[in-house]
Amino acid sequence: MMHPAFEAFSTSVLPILDIAGTAVFAVSGALAAARERLTILTFMFFAAITGVGGGTVRDLLIGAPVSWMHNSTGITVCMVCALLVWFTPGRLWSERAVDWFDGMGIAAYGVYGAAKAIAYGIPPVPAALMGIVSACMGGIFRDVLAGVPSIIIRPELYVTAVALSSCSYVLLTKAGCDTTLAAAIAIFAGFALRALALLKGLSLPHYRK
Amino acid sequence: MMHPAFEAFSTSVLPILDIAGTAVFAVSGALAAARERLTILTFMFFAAITGVGGGTVRDLLIGAPVSWMHNSTGITVCMVCALLVWFTPGRLWSERAVDWFDGMGIAAYGVYGAAKAIAYGIPPVPAALMGIVSACMGGIFRDVLAGVPSIIIRPELYVTAVALSSCSYVLLTKAGCDTTLAAAIAIFAGFALRALALLKGLSLPHYRK
Amino acid sequence: MMHPAFEAFSTSVLPILDIAGTAVFAVSGALAAARERLTILTFMFFAAITGVGGGTVRDLLIGAPVSWMHNSTGITVCMVCALLVWFTPGRLWSERAVDWFDGMGIAAYGVYGAAKAIAYGIPPVPAALMGIVSACMGGIFRDVLAGVPSIIIRPELYVTAVALSSCSYVLLTKAGCDTTLAAAIAIFAGFALRALALLKGLSLPHYRK
Repeated sequence: MMHPAFEAFSTSVLPILDIAGTAVFAVSGALAAARERLTILTFMFFAAITGVGGGTVRDLLIGAPVSWMHNSTGITVCMVCALLVWFTPGRLWSERAVDWFDGMGIAAYGVYGAAKAIAYGIPPVPAALMGIVSACMGGIFRDVLAGVPSIIIRPELYVTAVALSSCSYVLLTKAGCDTTLAAAIAIFAGFALRALALLKGLSLPHYRK
Repeated sequence: MMHPAFEAFSTSVLPILDIAGTAVFAVSGALAAARERLTILTFMFFAAITGVGGGTVRDLLIGAPVSWMHNSTGITVCMVCALLVWFTPGRLWSERAVDWFDGMGIAAYGVYGAAKAIAYGIPPVPAALMGIVSACMGGIFRDVLAGVPSIIIRPELYVTAVALSSCSYVLLTKAGCDTTLAAAIAIFAGFALRALALLKGLSLPHYRK
Repeated sequence: MMHPAFEAFSTSVLPILDIAGTAVFAVSGALAAARERLTILTFMFFAAITGVGGGTVRDLLIGAPVSWMHNSTGITVCMVCALLVWFTPGRLWSERAVDWFDGMGIAAYGVYGAAKAIAYGIPPVPAALMGIVSACMGGIFRDVLAGVPSIIIRPELYVTAVALSSCSYVLLTKAGCDTTLAAAIAIFAGFALRALALLKGLSLPHYRK
C-alpha cells in the first residue's frame, strides 16, 4: 500500500528523521522520569511512550502497521536513551540543551509524519495533522502520565513550529517540489521558528474575551 | 465490509447526526480552551480532539478506517467551530446553552456510533457500548488534557442519557423496527432524559458502602 | 493470521488466563470507582476500561481484531464484576486481598499478552512489551481517569513483576520449552516476585542524581 516514490525517499532521508525524532523524544521522556525521581523501569516506560507514542497513534490512524511492532530499531533506541539518562550525571542534561535537541526532533518528526501519511494515501489536510500528531502525541502522553500540564497548553510556540514544518512539507510537495528538498526546507522552517521561540520567548496571544 | 442496508441509511440520516455531534463536541472543546485562556492553535487542537476523538476510538475498535482520515468534513467542521468560538464574544456561549446543544449531540452520537458498529458486524452488546464510546470519549480526552475532572465522574445523568439512546436504538432495530424510526425514537429518548437531568438536576445515586 | 500451535494452546490455557486477568482488573476498576463514591454506571465504565483496556491496546498494536468486539465474554465479565462490587459490602474487598488477586492477574496477563503477540508474528522484544502493555495499560487508564498517580509511577515492584513474567515466557518458548510449561513457570515467577514485593515491601531504587 506504500507509494513507490515514498519507498525511494524512505531509504534515504526518512529513516534518519525517524531515529532522530525518536531519540530526542525518548530522552525527554527519560528526563521527565528523572525529575520525578522514578526507577530504571519507569525511565524505560517513559522513554518508550514518549519516543514511539506519537508514531504509534499516527500509524493506527492512517491504517499502517505499527512500525515498532515489526522493526525493533525504534524501541531499542528508546531503551538505550533511558539507560543513557539513568547512568549519566543529571547536569549533562541541561533543560536548555534538551529544548534545542527537541526543537530539531519536532521539526523532523512533523515532516516524517506528514510524509508517511501521504505515502499511505491520506489527503493533504489530515496528512499535515498526522505530522503534528507524530511530533506532539508522545509528549502529551508523557505529560499526562507524569501529571504535569501538557505541552499543548503552553502558550510558547511549540505546536505552531511543528505545524509550520508539517504544513510546509505538504504544500511544497503538492506544489511539485522534490521530496528531499521539501523536507529540508520544511524542517529548517519549523526549527527556525522554534529557535526564535526559545531565544525571544515568542508565543501566541492568549484568548481574552 | 459495510452492510448494504446501512449504506442506504448512511446517505440519509447518519451524515446529519455525525456532523451535528462533531460540531457540538468541537464547540465544547473550544470552550474548554477558552476557559483556560489558551491560544488559537490549542483552540483548534481541543476542538479536533473533542470533535473527532470519540469517533476515532470507535473506528479503531470496530476495525473501520478512521473516518476523518479519508473525508475531511469532520476535521473541517472542528476547525470552523474553533474559529467561531475564538472570534465571537464569550457571552454568546453561555454554559447553559452549550449544555442543551451538547444534550442533542450526545443523543445523536450515541445512535450514530451504535449504528456504525452494527453496520460493521459488531454484536449488540459491544455495538451499544460503541455508541457510548463515540459520544463520551472525546469529552474524556478534553477533560484529561485540560486537567479537569472527567465527565464520566459527574453523578449527573450524562453517560446514562447516552446509554439510553444507544441501547434503545440497538434494541429497537434488533426487534425489527425501521432504522430511521428507531434512530428518531432513540435520540428523542436520550435527549429527553438529558433534558430532565438539566432541568431537575436528576442524578444517579452514589456508592455509599 | 493466527499461528496453528497458538490455536491449540488457545483452546486450553489461554482463555482461563484471559478471563482471570480481565476479572481481576475489572474488580480493581470498580473499587477505584467505589473509592471515589461514584455511580453504578461509572462502576461499569471503570470496570470495563480497566478490564479490557490493556488487551484493547495490545490488539490494536499487534494488528489483531479487538477481542471484546467479537466475543462478549470479556465485557460481560467486567459488567458482572462491577455489579458484584456495587452490591456487596465494601469491607469484603480489603485492599490487601485485592492486591493478592491483582498479583495473580498481572502475572497471568503478562504471559497472555506476550503469547498472543507471538501468535500474530510479533518479534520477541515487542512481544514481551505487549505482555507488559496488556497487564498494565488498563490500570494506567483507571488511574488517569480517576485522577490518582499512575501505578507505573509507584516504586514498588509491580511493572517489574509483569516484565519478569512476560520476558521469561518469551525466553522459555524461544528456547524450545513447551508453551503450557513455559506459561506455568513464567506466571509463577512473576507472581512470586510480586508476592515478595507485597510481603517485604521490595522496591526498585529511585533515581538520585
